[in-house]
Amino acid sequence: MTAPADLLPREARARFRDGLATPTAGWSRGFTQANLVVLPRDLALDFLVFAQRNPKPCPVLDVLEAGEVSGPLLDGDVRTDLPRYRVFVDGELVDEPTDVAAHWRDDLVSFLVGCSFTFESALLEAGVPVRHVEQDRNVPMYVTDRRCRPAGALAGPLVVSMRPVPAARVADAVRISGRYPAVHGAPVHVGDPAALGIADLARPDFGDAVDVRPGEVPVFWACGVTPQAAVMESRPPLAITHAPGHMLVTDARDSDYLVP
Amino acid sequence: MTAPADLLPREARARFRDGLATPTAGWSRGFTQANLVVLPRDLALDFLVFAQRNPKPCPVLDVLEAGEVSGPLLDGDVRTDLPRYRVFVDGELVDEPTDVAAHWRDDLVSFLVGCSFTFESALLEAGVPVRHVEQDRNVPMYVTDRRCRPAGALAGPLVVSMRPVPAARVADAVRISGRYPAVHGAPVHVGDPAALGIADLARPDFGDAVDVRPGEVPVFWACGVTPQAAVMESRPPLAITHAPGHMLVTDARDSDYLVP
Repeated sequence: MTAPADLLPREARARFRDGLATPTAGWSRGFTQANLVVLPRDLALDFLVFAQRNPKPCPVLDVLEAGEVSGPLLDGDVRTDLPRYRVFVDGELVDEPTDVAAHWRDDLVSFLVGCSFTFESALLEAGVPVRHVEQDRNVPMYVTDRRCRPAGALAGPLVVSMRPVPAARVADAVRISGRYPAVHGAPVHVGDPAALGIADLARPDFGDAVDVRPGEVPVFWACGVTPQAAVMESRPPLAITHAPGHMLVTDARDSDYLVP
Repeated sequence: MTAPADLLPREARARFRDGLATPTAGWSRGFTQANLVVLPRDLALDFLVFAQRNPKPCPVLDVLEAGEVSGPLLDGDVRTDLPRYRVFVDGELVDEPTDVAAHWRDDLVSFLVGCSFTFESALLEAGVPVRHVEQDRNVPMYVTDRRCRPAGALAGPLVVSMRPVPAARVADAVRISGRYPAVHGAPVHVGDPAALGIADLARPDFGDAVDVRPGEVPVFWACGVTPQAAVMESRPPLAITHAPGHMLVTDARDSDYLVP
């Protein structure tokens, strides 16, 4: 059986469509993964303005208009092709299904938002360790005490992902990820978690804790779960997202988002 | 009297507020200029999706929500602080006033879109000629036969600006402008105008013709007048824009949009 890293995106999506529910870090190496945010059309403008005002956590890669369930980034169906979803009603998580056909409505607009998994291949190629891939876990994500710039009905905190990096490789991690501005780009913070209001790295708000080894520095990137935090705080009547770490594997290549 | 190039943005905006109507190329050198697109709120989502799908001609720098007339990029009033506006009703140009207070409504959303004037300082500093500044004219702009990717009710052609560049400096013009992706970035086309459906460089659709000298190549950049072309084609009930070449001079510095 082909290893997940070697599956083509359409093959990965077919497995998820068939019901496989797993975090996607390391899947279809070389292809871009995306966060999903689905909102009713009358909140879609607020979300796009929110994304425009908070480009580090919310880099929009594509928008599927109301009534569209496929697009240039996926030859498939956004309602079924992710491994796991979250459904929020009035900001409360009500369901974590493996497809959302039952929740779908014709007025829903889907936003595909860049994901930091995209630059992990480049980190690994450069010999920068990616601990959650090494440990076969979901990436750890934390809600910070930094506020996003609000837009319309949407407001919320910045959410970050964390990767421990050996002190001598932090500059490489910054430089390499900085070449991918469309998928969160360079870190927002290097070092002391408390400065972001994170009390305990061992207790992430989303995903799994990973080992931080002696000589390593926690490095924090803006995270595409930020829109989910805004949804939880702003309580729209309906929102559908991917489950954290369970991304859309797109047909775009990581190199499509590389800035020379 | 201070030369236009040496005026601070707020000083330039004060002159325009007082009624001065002039193209802004070369004004407040080192500060970013922006295209303005103002649409009723119920078309704002379509515009933001249009911009997201056509980032080269429509790089959104900021959005003023319905009811807002100022923002972080301008300490002033977007209804009065540009030198000249265009007002479109059902896609027809009905007015070119020097302020739009009389046309304003509370449901209007303002989009500030990047402008290629932003990288002209960098071109000039590198010794790449900018002919329309030399000749004290408005930049020449052309409607092409390339279609933008449509979004909702908005569709239209790509509009480009043109600068003649000596053959030996084309690579520098590409390299330098490419460092400013938020303000149209690298050219979309170098050379033969006919390949873009442009019949005669001497007859631009907007702005003024400039001299193309022997040994120079016409270089075409995506242009922020593209939304105006979409407005003319898509005929929304009301749209307000800047007059081509008569930009918002913002408080942001060109260097804010420089990618290292």
